[in-house]
Amino acid sequence: MRLSRLGEFGLIDRIRRQVAVGCGVRLGIGDDAAWVDHPQGSSLVTADLLIEGIHFDLKWTSLADLGYKSLAVNLSDIAAMGGTPAYVIISLGIPPNLDSNKIDKLYRGINGLAKKHGVSIVGGDTNIAGSLLVSVCLIGHPPKQPICRSGAHVGDDIYVTGTLGDAALGLNLLRRRRLPQSREVAQLLKRHHRPTPRLAAGVLLAKRNLATAMIDVSDGLIQDLGHICQASGVGATIRQEKLPLSRAFRALAGKGGMRYALSGGEDYELLFCAAPQQRKRIETLGKQSGVAISRIGICEPTANGIRVIDTAGAEVAIKAQGHDHFKKH
Amino acid sequence: MRLSRLGEFGLIDRIRRQVAVGCGVRLGIGDDAAWVDHPQGSSLVTADLLIEGIHFDLKWTSLADLGYKSLAVNLSDIAAMGGTPAYVIISLGIPPNLDSNKIDKLYRGINGLAKKHGVSIVGGDTNIAGSLLVSVCLIGHPPKQPICRSGAHVGDDIYVTGTLGDAALGLNLLRRRRLPQSREVAQLLKRHHRPTPRLAAGVLLAKRNLATAMIDVSDGLIQDLGHICQASGVGATIRQEKLPLSRAFRALAGKGGMRYALSGGEDYELLFCAAPQQRKRIETLGKQSGVAISRIGICEPTANGIRVIDTAGAEVAIKAQGHDHFKKH
Repeated sequence: MRLSRLGEFGLIDRIRRQVAVGCGVRLGIGDDAAWVDHPQGSSLVTADLLIEGIHFDLKWTSLADLGYKSLAVNLSDIAAMGGTPAYVIISLGIPPNLDSNKIDKLYRGINGLAKKHGVSIVGGDTNIAGSLLVSVCLIGHPPKQPICRSGAHVGDDIYVTGTLGDAALGLNLLRRRRLPQSREVAQLLKRHHRPTPRLAAGVLLAKRNLATAMIDVSDGLIQDLGHICQASGVGATIRQEKLPLSRAFRALAGKGGMRYALSGGEDYELLFCAAPQQRKRIETLGKQSGVAISRIGICEPTANGIRVIDTAGAEVAIKAQGHDHFKKH
Repeated sequence: MRLSRLGEFGLIDRIRRQVAVGCGVRLGIGDDAAWVDHPQGSSLVTADLLIEGIHFDLKWTSLADLGYKSLAVNLSDIAAMGGTPAYVIISLGIPPNLDSNKIDKLYRGINGLAKKHGVSIVGGDTNIAGSLLVSVCLIGHPPKQPICRSGAHVGDDIYVTGTLGDAALGLNLLRRRRLPQSREVAQLLKRHHRPTPRLAAGVLLAKRNLATAMIDVSDGLIQDLGHICQASGVGATIRQEKLPLSRAFRALAGKGGMRYALSGGEDYELLFCAAPQQRKRIETLGKQSGVAISRIGICEPTANGIRVIDTAGAEVAIKAQGHDHFKKH
């Protein structure tokens, strides 16, 4: 079967069914990060690969932003388990004619974010390649109980940190022939180029044992919520008017812009579920971790699937299902 | 500066000088694997990236062989520290038109070798890409004292496992328009496609505290010995007639074939140094680990650099310096 027909998640399922898994694997393929045992203690491990022309375009992405983002997306995976990032290993494919200053800039972007979170760059591999690619593997320390995608229950509230749709709307602006200039545009571009991994919120959620399931929003709210629903065996109802939207987003999204908030990828916010009796404690946690946390819906029985309803209670048709790297859009 | 002028090792040095390194890093960039602390215990970490058209050619490399080799080269790095491999995370860049059966075959190659060494595949990332690429990150358990490149002393013997030059000669045969058919050819091709990581030998060398420095031969004997010499602050004299050559190599290398043994890459044998009083114990270890171990030279004062001498004691001119991914050959 062609991969474009099988799709990314079909392929991942297929891989998961056939790979060698021995002892010591507490959590393998299928969550934000793997959780593995050592002779003493355990680690979280995650990896992301960014390829020129697929994940980024050097026409509008600086090398420093690329470096920042290649680490940020991995930090976000560790955040989504409630873990603390520690060590990163970076493999690069580099066009041979690239100036070495550009690689310095790439590392400057990585370094700034790494230092902020106490992460060390410990190794990697450098190779020539037809186009630029950055492959990052991040190792983190787990909390006592990492937060998986599979623990949500019917009746749990659904929360998201920060705001949704900014990164996707920012990318849409970049793709226009003429980029409008304004403070709002700059804010959305920043959200696309330099997403903020929600590490503090993730750590607190795990420490206080508040979230029953968690994922980071990389492929779009509906799709990533779908991963929680599938792993947990629940459905979900999202109230559209509760989706947190930034001022810049409201100013620029225009008609039909809601699709960016529902299905746009790369916001790298945390999407999590928690029992209704935890509402007060989650409100407190939001204040302490320095990021807004919005309650956007509720977990339902599986039969209901994922529904988005508007203020009148009518179901919103969801067109795009978010990002699949193989399927045609 | 253009990377093609700076070279791979110039770039690695440049990266090493600027990356963020915090606490917990026992050994960072610049050895076969990194060695990092956890709240309890520690790990070895290494990564390798294989790119179509650069590291492999699907004209003569099967997907199963590619999968095998992408894991084998990482296992070899852990072997070169004396460690035990444990968990692997695999990121793939896949042309969208590739048949998913080919990815199954790739994983079959990885799986076979993973199972043999008790390694679990715990995660990764799948993406579309212009050409096939396999990025592997391997986590291993360290011995009590990992064997670095930096511990060799003047007067130490220099040893290598297995035989040298087979993989490079095999690749040279593959590049010919018409591939001759014989048992010897098949043996050399196998050495190119399916190198054997010397894990048992590596573990025993570390356990018995026999090697003062170790590296795996990935870029060619002279170049990899150069890394040990530079890190340890020693020079070396290699006796050419002591280089271990396979029967197939002797049959097919022809005139000038010695360059494959001296500078050909990808043999993935262990190259290590040990004090002269350990000769008997290393002989025993060779028998126990199931691989021939040859004493090929001696560590000298730095001023002498690396010299290769023939049976008459005359210095052999070393033309190629092994593989550099950026410099033009």
